[in-house]
Amino acid sequence: MRSLKLTLAYDGTRYAGWQVQPDQPTVQQALERALTKITGETIRTCASGRTDAGVHALGQVVSLETDSRLAPDVLRRALCAELREDVAVLAVEEMAEGFHAIRDALAKRYRYEIDDGPVRDVFRRHYTWQHPGRLSAGAMHAAGQALVGKHDFASFQSSGSERATTVRTITELFVRRGEGEGTDRITTEVAADGFLYNMVRAIVGTLVEVGRGARSESWPAEVLAARDRSRAGPTAPPQGLFLVRVEYKAGR
Amino acid sequence: MRSLKLTLAYDGTRYAGWQVQPDQPTVQQALERALTKITGETIRTCASGRTDAGVHALGQVVSLETDSRLAPDVLRRALCAELREDVAVLAVEEMAEGFHAIRDALAKRYRYEIDDGPVRDVFRRHYTWQHPGRLSAGAMHAAGQALVGKHDFASFQSSGSERATTVRTITELFVRRGEGEGTDRITTEVAADGFLYNMVRAIVGTLVEVGRGARSESWPAEVLAARDRSRAGPTAPPQGLFLVRVEYKAGR
Repeated sequence: MRSLKLTLAYDGTRYAGWQVQPDQPTVQQALERALTKITGETIRTCASGRTDAGVHALGQVVSLETDSRLAPDVLRRALCAELREDVAVLAVEEMAEGFHAIRDALAKRYRYEIDDGPVRDVFRRHYTWQHPGRLSAGAMHAAGQALVGKHDFASFQSSGSERATTVRTITELFVRRGEGEGTDRITTEVAADGFLYNMVRAIVGTLVEVGRGARSESWPAEVLAARDRSRAGPTAPPQGLFLVRVEYKAGR
Repeated sequence: MRSLKLTLAYDGTRYAGWQVQPDQPTVQQALERALTKITGETIRTCASGRTDAGVHALGQVVSLETDSRLAPDVLRRALCAELREDVAVLAVEEMAEGFHAIRDALAKRYRYEIDDGPVRDVFRRHYTWQHPGRLSAGAMHAAGQALVGKHDFASFQSSGSERATTVRTITELFVRRGEGEGTDRITTEVAADGFLYNMVRAIVGTLVEVGRGARSESWPAEVLAARDRSRAGPTAPPQGLFLVRVEYKAGR
């Protein structure tokens, strides 16, 4: 068996998320069907993390095992031809046996886009949270710095997840307003060694409370210390969220 | 009766173009329904030009007459609330009586987006022509300069239109490859005193023949001189086309 690493971009708008679900279109289902059609094998894929309905990926990583002898780039092009236009396979790489997209992941980066302009941007409605009312990106950035470092993020986890520990390390968090044509756009990026379920959307929802002036800049630190999900802001909507990339050990 | 000028942005993806058609969603129909709901009147709207199915607008201009006394910005916000997320009313302005979006237009500008990167951009599939194979933007730009000026553009008109004359004046035409993250993107802009049916898409389809090396840089000039639609390149697909803006006499 060969171990392969696939890097995918997808527009999550019309999918019920990554993971296979009965009677609903998912990215995993679309990918596995395409793999079966191309290789003739039944192939199970594993993504670095599930993305929810409406969430997008710029660089999702997927591992799989196959007996197929297709060269990586031949397989990549065949998959792109087979998949709908809203999923693209950016790379197919040959890995050491046993490569596993979840177990071997060292770090991940997510981006969250908010538009707070006076008029909605009709072309970005599936790719941003169109927030009614101006936000202070500076206050959001300042407030967010309390979350950087190794902390128990239980306050920023949606119920329903079953992680052994809620401790994670955020290595970078920034909130930045765009320049020039992007001046109505606020980009948040968070990099960490791992994320709890809905963690980025809970963090963004909390920082927006600060950005719109409903809470002080010190509030997110209090939310973090409480280790209680009911203390955080509302979960930001899915369509502004992008999985940017996943990092692996050297050679992975 | 008041004469109003509306400036609209819309994502044309799910519409069968601007103009009302039986049993198909169009932007005009959506706008007129919203106007009726807000004012109680039956209002007929007139756009600066029809856009085809899948074609977008950044600044379409629409004229209408109404007895409503609603202040312009109140009407604008009511329309935005009533319309779907893929249509936005950017401005509502009070005009001198008799303002007419077609008759009073002096000039228009269109943009056409092509992506020619090695991997499709899943987020731009409704907003660009994803061209398989690299194009020379420089050759396209050079070839396009022969079209600038006052010419008979009969070669760049789709059949089915009924214009009195096929003479138009292109005041600017450029083809430019993006920089930085936009290096796989080729933007064409054409400004003219008016456009024939499908003129921009026929021009872009012709310039792409040059850009991919199938035709010489002097070929578009020959096509223009022939005044024969069958001589031009194929019509570029609709989803890359944007009506950027329409210009009116001072005060209009």
